[in-house]
Order: sequence, then structure tokens, then C-alpha cells
Amino acid sequence: MTAAFATLSEFRALLNGLPGPDAAALEGARARNGQLTKPPGALGRLEDLAIWYAGWRGDARPVLAHPQVIIFAGNHGVTARGVSAFPAEVTVQMVANFKAGGAAINQLCKAFGAEMAVHALELDRPTADFTQGPAMSEPEVVAALNAGWQAVNPAADLLVVGEMGIGNTTAAAAIACALFGGAPGEWTGRGTGVDDHGLSIKTQVVAEGLAANPSRDPLAVLAALGGREIAAMAGAIARAHALRIPVILDGFICTAAAATLAMAAPGALDHCVAGHASAEAAHRALLSKLGLSPLLELGLRLGEGSGAALAIGVLKGAVACHSGMATFAEAGVSDA
Amino acid sequence: MTAAFATLSEFRALLNGLPGPDAAALEGARARNGQLTKPPGALGRLEDLAIWYAGWRGDARPVLAHPQVIIFAGNHGVTARGVSAFPAEVTVQMVANFKAGGAAINQLCKAFGAEMAVHALELDRPTADFTQGPAMSEPEVVAALNAGWQAVNPAADLLVVGEMGIGNTTAAAAIACALFGGAPGEWTGRGTGVDDHGLSIKTQVVAEGLAANPSRDPLAVLAALGGREIAAMAGAIARAHALRIPVILDGFICTAAAATLAMAAPGALDHCVAGHASAEAAHRALLSKLGLSPLLELGLRLGEGSGAALAIGVLKGAVACHSGMATFAEAGVSDA
Repeated sequence: MTAAFATLSEFRALLNGLPGPDAAALEGARARNGQLTKPPGALGRLEDLAIWYAGWRGDARPVLAHPQVIIFAGNHGVTARGVSAFPAEVTVQMVANFKAGGAAINQLCKAFGAEMAVHALELDRPTADFTQGPAMSEPEVVAALNAGWQAVNPAADLLVVGEMGIGNTTAAAAIACALFGGAPGEWTGRGTGVDDHGLSIKTQVVAEGLAANPSRDPLAVLAALGGREIAAMAGAIARAHALRIPVILDGFICTAAAATLAMAAPGALDHCVAGHASAEAAHRALLSKLGLSPLLELGLRLGEGSGAALAIGVLKGAVACHSGMATFAEAGVSDA
Repeated sequence: MTAAFATLSEFRALLNGLPGPDAAALEGARARNGQLTKPPGALGRLEDLAIWYAGWRGDARPVLAHPQVIIFAGNHGVTARGVSAFPAEVTVQMVANFKAGGAAINQLCKAFGAEMAVHALELDRPTADFTQGPAMSEPEVVAALNAGWQAVNPAADLLVVGEMGIGNTTAAAAIACALFGGAPGEWTGRGTGVDDHGLSIKTQVVAEGLAANPSRDPLAVLAALGGREIAAMAGAIARAHALRIPVILDGFICTAAAATLAMAAPGALDHCVAGHASAEAAHRALLSKLGLSPLLELGLRLGEGSGAALAIGVLKGAVACHSGMATFAEAGVSDA
């Protein structure tokens, strides 16, 4: 397939030319919402979600029928520093588990009727250890962004991107710290379950990574501190925006990927909602920096897109109410 | 159908003889949870939910396939006092809307594959105005409890009870205040949308209702301050417990119905989870009194079982992960 962009500069230009929601559909959805058989505002956030979804789909009475979940997997050179509770070979083992249907995300996709795709990105060629210099060269990050861009099904009407990559909460913490400042320890957490010693190593590694990679340009940060699966998530989120496919963001790593887009181009995440607040300590802070409020708060910290996939149910419910309910006039119900 | 109980005293005895969860299934589910291909605890509250569900279903690897949603509707004499933003005839109009498939709950039932039943309880015979004495006589409340008891489908594997009844946030506030104390104004809220004047009337009406009905026995409170739909919800929740069918509680009114059971018999709500925290101000306080933590907090305040129905998706996701995921051994994934 031809690459959609050949350089970070081309990708940046593309990000700055993304469309907004459809104004007529937004207006039509707001008007419809006011006529449905319920007290005004009684469906709470479901009403906002349905109107937002209608705007992006360009349809005042939309249907949500074809969600796509894409899992990207990548390996991280920084795992050699001992930042994870699990060995790096678990990444490839879990990819096999995804393909065999045995992971949590497989069950959630089945439960919510989502198409699931898995893209393993050069697992036998981990990114470089970012404490020694950039994790990825420009051609490497552009290839990963393109892999994400091309993985999106243009016929989908909702996108969730998830990830698998032992060591990637460390990469996400480094990205968040580079983009938003603060001490490295404010952005590191226990990931899959490191102990106090592991956590102190993570924090030290993030500090070293920031020192070794001084650029704070958001896309340079993605290349220097990210990983292939993180860049691919960013590419897929951007493509969904170009296609006006709404996105539910997952946890800390997905949100860090999304944050590089938001900092590179204002409005880049207008087509996104936050699916959940993860138990990973810094996720809530990162959502807050992005002005995003999570739909669910159930203490998940698995990745794989699992929190976002769970939130597909909420969005499906919101759209079903909006598009399926009778109006006061249709039902002959007295208004307030 | 023969009534399951003929007096409140018989109902109380029944409540005090309800079964607990299956210990072997609980133990089996906990063991299975520890072997699934995820870091320990990474599915957060979904893990607790799945284990709880397994215990009540008596199956360490359960399936959630047949949720039932029952909507009970009743009319309240207290509406004559001006406690609601909507006229009392909306109750019967909304029942027609439920039957025609036009309400929010219809769309949510379709979205989550739930069977839906609607029981309108003597809508042409509102309960008495509880500021003048008991809303229901003992035979009336027992009939309503029986209606709820008998409405549960024994083949269901999950129950949601919802309600429609103009004026019933006033009844729920009165019940909560009678059971848990505090000032009436701590338990009243805007319901379907009353203004400040309407809210002050509600608070006054609750105070009068408590003065006119001095017994604080939980089932006497249900009769004196409740309504037919509230008693029917209590009856259905109790029946589900007897049948070991887990229940997702809805908003303020449903939780007030449930609270009468909890105060009448310790453990009566062990088979229940709180589906959501409603925007009705006192719901969170009531959940807290019952030691329940809501699954969702999306600002809903519609009733109809809508918040609980939305939470069916969360519980389905939890059970699907628990029962469908591969173990570390099955998938050949390295443990931590």
C-alpha cells in the first residue's frame, strides 16, 4: 500500500487539515434530543455523547453498528532496564493469544459486536533504548504511523485502538512528562505490577530518557520516547479523524499516543472521548491535561483497548436511545 | 396465581430466610480468575463482578445470556400537592410508550439483549396522599409486593427493575428519610425537573408524610410512604434473591425500594450491585448508607431502569472476560 505520508512534516500538515463535525447534523441531533420522551437532560451524559456522535457521523439520527477494535503490538528496547513485571517475550505470546481468541479484548469484542484486528509491528526488532537516544528514527516512526493509518477500516462507524507492549507504560510516562512537564515520578506507575524497586527504576529511566532526547516537539517526542505500537495508535486515531469515525480512547498508553496529536494540532482529538480512567496513577492527570472526562472508572489497567471496548456499550446505549426513542408528539406524552 | 405471602409478617419471615451465594462456585471463580491471561487485578472491578455473579449463579464459569428488565408503574396521591414538574397522567402515557417501544428503556433493552416486561399497577387508583396517613393499607402493599414477586422470570439470569410514577422521587425521599434520618431536605431533589418552589413543596410534603406516619419499621415505612411500583420493585428484588438471580439496582427510587429490604433483613441485598449513581442529589447518599458503590456515574436521572440497563453491558463484559479468557497455561503465556 502507498504510504499516506512520507515524513513527520507531511503527517503534521495532514493533522492540521483535519475536518470538524457536521454542523447541520449537530443541530439536527440537538433538536431531536429536545423532543424525545424524557425530561430535559434526564439521560445525562448519554445525550451529549449521542449528539457528538451524530455530528461526526454527519447524521442527526445515526446508527452505531460497526465498531472496529485494532490492537497494535510493539517491543521496547527499554525493557532491558528492568521496567516491567513481565518479560519482553510476553508481547509476542499475547499476540498469539489475541489471534487465538483467548484475551480479555477478544471477549469484549464479541460481547459488543466489534470487529477486531491485530497488528504486530516488528516484534523481533525492538525500538532502541531511549535512555541512549531516540527510540525510533524518523523513517521508523513514519512507518509505524502509516501502519496505524492504514489499519483503520473506512467502513467502521467507531474506532477503539488498543496496545500490547511490555515496557510501554514507561514509554507513555516519558511522553507525558516530555509534553506536559512535571517530575518523572508524577507520570510513572506500577503498570502490570512492578514493586517499589521496579517503580524507582521506571522513574529513573524516564528521567534519563528525557535528558537523552531534548526536543519537546510533540511528534519528535513520539519518535524519541514512544514505540511502534504507540505511533501506530496515533496514526489510527488521526486516520479516524480524517474519515470522521469517532474514537473511544483507552488507558494511559493510548492517551499518551493521542496526546502527541493534540499537542501537534489543536482539535486533533475532537472526534475522541475517553473510555475510562485507568488504575495507572497518571492516566487521570493526562486526561485532565487533555480536557477529557472518562466514561467509566472501574479500576482497569490491562491495556489491549479493554477499557475503551467496555465503553462501546455506553456509546451504543446512548446512540440507541437518541435514534430509537419516540418524540413527545409521536407517543402522545404530555410535555412538562 | 397464588400469592407467595399474605401479610407483611409472612414477607418479613421470607426475607429472613433467603439463601447466600454458592461457596464452591465463589471459590472456583476466584481460582479461575487468578489463572487468566492478564496481570493480577488488571481487570479491576470487572474481576469482583464476575466472581460475585459466579457465586450467585452457582457456576464458577457462568454465562450471562438472559437478562430481564421489569418496569413497574404506579400513581401517587401526593402528586395533588404539586411535587412534580409533570402531570400525573404522564404515568399512563409513558406506560403506553413502553408498550409501543418508544421509551429509552426499550432501546437499552434491545441494545443489551434484555427481555422487557411492563406492569402497570392500578394506575386509575393512586395511593393515598401520605401526608394524611399511610399511602397503602397492608393488603395493598402486600398485593404490590406479590405483583413484583410474581413478575420475575425464573429463567432469567440477571434482573433489572425500573419504575415509572409521577411523584415517586417524593415517595423515595420520604422512605430514605424515615429509614436513615436526617432532615427531609437532605433527601429531596429536583426529580424530573422541579424549580426551587417545587423543591420546597417536596421537602415540606416529606416532612408532613413523616409526621403523619410515625412507624419506622422498614416494611411499615414501605407501606406508609411508598407506592405500588416501589413495593413491586422490592418484591421483585426479594424474589430474585430467592431464585439466586443477581440484580442491578437502578436510581434513587429503585434504591429506596431496595433499602426497605436491607433494613428489614440484613444481607437482603447481597445479590445486588448498584448500576449507577443518579443525578438525583440524594441517590449517592442512599447508596452510601447501603454500602453500595455504583458502576456508572453518567448523570442519568430518568428512572425506567435506564441506568441499571446501561450497566448490563458492564456486567456482560465482566462475565464474558471471566468465562471466555484463556488461562496462562492454555495460551502458553509466561506468568509474572
